[in-house]
Amino acid sequence: MSNPDIKINEIKALESQVAEIRSKIEAMDKTKPSNKLSMVVFSGDLDKILAAFVIATGSVAMGMEAVMFFTFWGTPVLRDKKKKAGKKDVMGRMFGAMLPKGTCEVKLSKMNMGGMGTAMMKSLMKKKNVASLEQMLEMAEELGVRIFVCEMSMDLMGFKREEMIDYKDITFCGVAKFLEEAKDSRIQLFI
Amino acid sequence: MSNPDIKINEIKALESQVAEIRSKIEAMDKTKPSNKLSMVVFSGDLDKILAAFVIATGSVAMGMEAVMFFTFWGTPVLRDKKKKAGKKDVMGRMFGAMLPKGTCEVKLSKMNMGGMGTAMMKSLMKKKNVASLEQMLEMAEELGVRIFVCEMSMDLMGFKREEMIDYKDITFCGVAKFLEEAKDSRIQLFI
Amino acid sequence: MSNPDIKINEIKALESQVAEIRSKIEAMDKTKPSNKLSMVVFSGDLDKILAAFVIATGSVAMGMEAVMFFTFWGTPVLRDKKKKAGKKDVMGRMFGAMLPKGTCEVKLSKMNMGGMGTAMMKSLMKKKNVASLEQMLEMAEELGVRIFVCEMSMDLMGFKREEMIDYKDITFCGVAKFLEEAKDSRIQLFI
Repeated sequence: MSNPDIKINEIKALESQVAEIRSKIEAMDKTKPSNKLSMVVFSGDLDKILAAFVIATGSVAMGMEAVMFFTFWGTPVLRDKKKKAGKKDVMGRMFGAMLPKGTCEVKLSKMNMGGMGTAMMKSLMKKKNVASLEQMLEMAEELGVRIFVCEMSMDLMGFKREEMIDYKDITFCGVAKFLEEAKDSRIQLFI
Repeated sequence: MSNPDIKINEIKALESQVAEIRSKIEAMDKTKPSNKLSMVVFSGDLDKILAAFVIATGSVAMGMEAVMFFTFWGTPVLRDKKKKAGKKDVMGRMFGAMLPKGTCEVKLSKMNMGGMGTAMMKSLMKKKNVASLEQMLEMAEELGVRIFVCEMSMDLMGFKREEMIDYKDITFCGVAKFLEEAKDSRIQLFI
Repeated sequence: MSNPDIKINEIKALESQVAEIRSKIEAMDKTKPSNKLSMVVFSGDLDKILAAFVIATGSVAMGMEAVMFFTFWGTPVLRDKKKKAGKKDVMGRMFGAMLPKGTCEVKLSKMNMGGMGTAMMKSLMKKKNVASLEQMLEMAEELGVRIFVCEMSMDLMGFKREEMIDYKDITFCGVAKFLEEAKDSRIQLFI
């Protein structure tokens, strides 16, 4: 049993096993989701957009990363009311006119009541010290929430980049780029 | 090669590598999400609330934990129709009157048709042996589904704790507490 | 220190530790979520169904697996407009008549405007080379997106298997089977 050659073989076997374990752990560590939240912001309603920003900024405040992918009805929320787009075709002009231009024109999904419900909710938010959408957007920018805007939606609705808000970390991209982030996130939501 | 000192060094090196691997695995194990489902119940519609409870109770039946975070339109669903709140301001009284008081008054998101669609759906659920919302809530309580209620929504809509349902595992909290759970969950949904 | 017995004991201890680590890593590897996306398709709106298919086919194009669980308003979208169901009771006939029969009859969640908005969106999608729902469904089938259909919803709405679309990988099942997939997925969404 005390034959030194046997021990050498055992040690060699252990070393190769440990090396194998190390590389396996490294691989597992690499595919482990990051401490990140990814959400699709599909809705364009005041209440849902508000919830999206509360969740996104809340997660960053907790030390997580946050990515918001604005698509479909969520896209017009990111238009800048002070900016004008260049030439648009008929459809683009129609969508442009019918959809809200930025956070100010966003409405409640329920109890809008010709705008009265939305106005009530906004005054209530002010009274109760809940940040407005505009403030939320500023906060998100400061906290480093990353915003992705769906290029297919922009194209469908005829929106141009020149009419979107100025935001530090904004990316115009497709669903693949979002899924890349979502795959690597601990939390994913569709709002 | 059979110098015993070399072998001792090799063994020592292996021991420290194994210790390092152990601590790395422990760290990975700690940050691994639990066998848990976390959902935001944002909607206040009969159909969506029903789906939320079917999913939550279903996951517990499968051996998972479940946490439901009721926020915005989901909050009034948890009011107790037999309870009365104390003094409220005008806004609080308006929200109180306009929003459904508990599971019984919840309506379909589509085909409500002045309440007829909702009544049809309810009678259909009874006929097909699908549990009603009231039964679902009882089942959830028995199964140990944890309910979180969003304090910001309660405050916005002027709801008071004294008018909410009695439920064994209910917590009034903010979004941060929910995100803490969601981060540690295998499944997260926004309903 | 150069006592060979001590070294043997140390080697034995290392061997058992390495074996223990191996089995722990294997267990962790088994419970690690797969490179898969699972979504609940609850909505029956053109815009949301479109988003669901864009995300599902996009994830498969990225090398992930995808599972779509159609429930509630999502269920009628999978009816085949050319097929007829056998005998139904009154409720079943009513639901059958009121809900869209397949992807062609699906409407926008907003700006439907008596069908005009939906028609506009469809013509726009064609012009901008965005695949129609019918094409999306075909693409999903080719890419191997798995479709689950909620049996409880089928039962509630009185739909029969014989009136649903032909699709290679379709399964009629309950929420438990979906949760099993979702638990094992890197991304989960409720649409």
